[in-house]
Amino acid sequence: MRRRSGRGVARSTRPAGSRALGACFNMRPLSWQVVASAAAGFALALEALPVVLRWLRAGRRRRPQREVLFFPSQVTCTEALLQAPGATLSGCPCSLPHCESSLSRLLRALLAARASLELCLFAFCSPQLGRAVELLHQRGVRVRIVSDCDYMALNGSQIGLLRKAGIQVRHNQDLGYMHHKFAIVDKKVLITGSLNWTTQAIQNNRENVLILEDEEYVRLFLEEFERIWEEFNPTKYTFFPKKSRR
Amino acid sequence: MRRRSGRGVARSTRPAGSRALGACFNMRPLSWQVVASAAAGFALALEALPVVLRWLRAGRRRRPQREVLFFPSQVTCTEALLQAPGATLSGCPCSLPHCESSLSRLLRALLAARASLELCLFAFCSPQLGRAVELLHQRGVRVRIVSDCDYMALNGSQIGLLRKAGIQVRHNQDLGYMHHKFAIVDKKVLITGSLNWTTQAIQNNRENVLILEDEEYVRLFLEEFERIWEEFNPTKYTFFPKKSRR
Repeated sequence: MRRRSGRGVARSTRPAGSRALGACFNMRPLSWQVVASAAAGFALALEALPVVLRWLRAGRRRRPQREVLFFPSQVTCTEALLQAPGATLSGCPCSLPHCESSLSRLLRALLAARASLELCLFAFCSPQLGRAVELLHQRGVRVRIVSDCDYMALNGSQIGLLRKAGIQVRHNQDLGYMHHKFAIVDKKVLITGSLNWTTQAIQNNRENVLILEDEEYVRLFLEEFERIWEEFNPTKYTFFPKKSRR
Repeated sequence: MRRRSGRGVARSTRPAGSRALGACFNMRPLSWQVVASAAAGFALALEALPVVLRWLRAGRRRRPQREVLFFPSQVTCTEALLQAPGATLSGCPCSLPHCESSLSRLLRALLAARASLELCLFAFCSPQLGRAVELLHQRGVRVRIVSDCDYMALNGSQIGLLRKAGIQVRHNQDLGYMHHKFAIVDKKVLITGSLNWTTQAIQNNRENVLILEDEEYVRLFLEEFERIWEEFNPTKYTFFPKKSRR
């Protein structure tokens, strides 16, 4: 009787091992349609896997920092930012507004530094930004500053204070200005733009600052910083230069 | 004899339609191992397809412009760039080097404009950059310039010449400086940095310029330009302002 049924005949022609496997799992052998459907399903699942993984990863992964700050900045109180890490802006009882501003965003970007801070600044007179840099130095962040020889000597410049606090500062001696205005936070985030770090510029001028978490740009600006840092090594200073900018 | 062979028996037990198909293509029926292998191969091919397509597309698609220019720029001849579109730098017989420099790269980025050019510049004295902007205006590119009221009046400023050539210029009247130094080419490429467009800055200063083909940044800077453009509308000018910057 079994030989007359197609399936029975087909089963009887399978090798003994295969028959034993079928018996062991109490299964009928799979038809090619089932295998093909399973394979197609597998193919589709395999296809969807990267999309699902990317979606899951995107949920967990932080988007790289990309921000543009425009100035003049509203004059706000930034005391809380400069006191305790992670403090909110509402802690100070002064009469200034305690909301976010371009300056507070810039301070936050700087104060995020945990390991290193490279500063390449034409003019640095803002007391708030000066305090932020000193705070980072006190927290053990390795701060290095390059500035312009004329502008670092102006009244109100933060450079002298930061030098006294123990931060390394180097400057140019050539005829051209060291006119960069950039910072590199933890060798990961570039802060650059038209803004000189002065209260006049922050509160009155039309300025822009880009905050970019971008490997390629950070690498290029870090290379520029290291080039300048090496070139402005104090062992190469001329103490009585013949030429003057003026 | 055929019934004694396992394969022969299996074939004889298949439905008539299937037998006809087998006969038509002169094929033996597929075993499930073959079907599974084919499906696995199909799955792998399906998996590889997006990678291959992306690779093929990347070959054809231009990478968005991302460039950083550092200054001081080597002094080179830029005549050929300012004469005919698409000309090489070796056309001029002058004694200056005819190679690429940061200035020539900046000129190329500007001269790529076909429809519009927005300039928001604190100081604009470079004759080469002035000629490039005038050339674009002559080619029918819509050029709009915002500048600083004090610096546009300095000796050597290109603003007066460009105004005479028919280009629209607007300026601030407030106490703060219009200290931006950015350009937007065809509403697609942003050129921004620390560089004032002066020969002193180009040839002597440490400066940086970022060239970014980035939709998000271009949108933000274009919004800033339009805000300033509207705010500096000549109908709102005060001709005898009470306050002075000095």
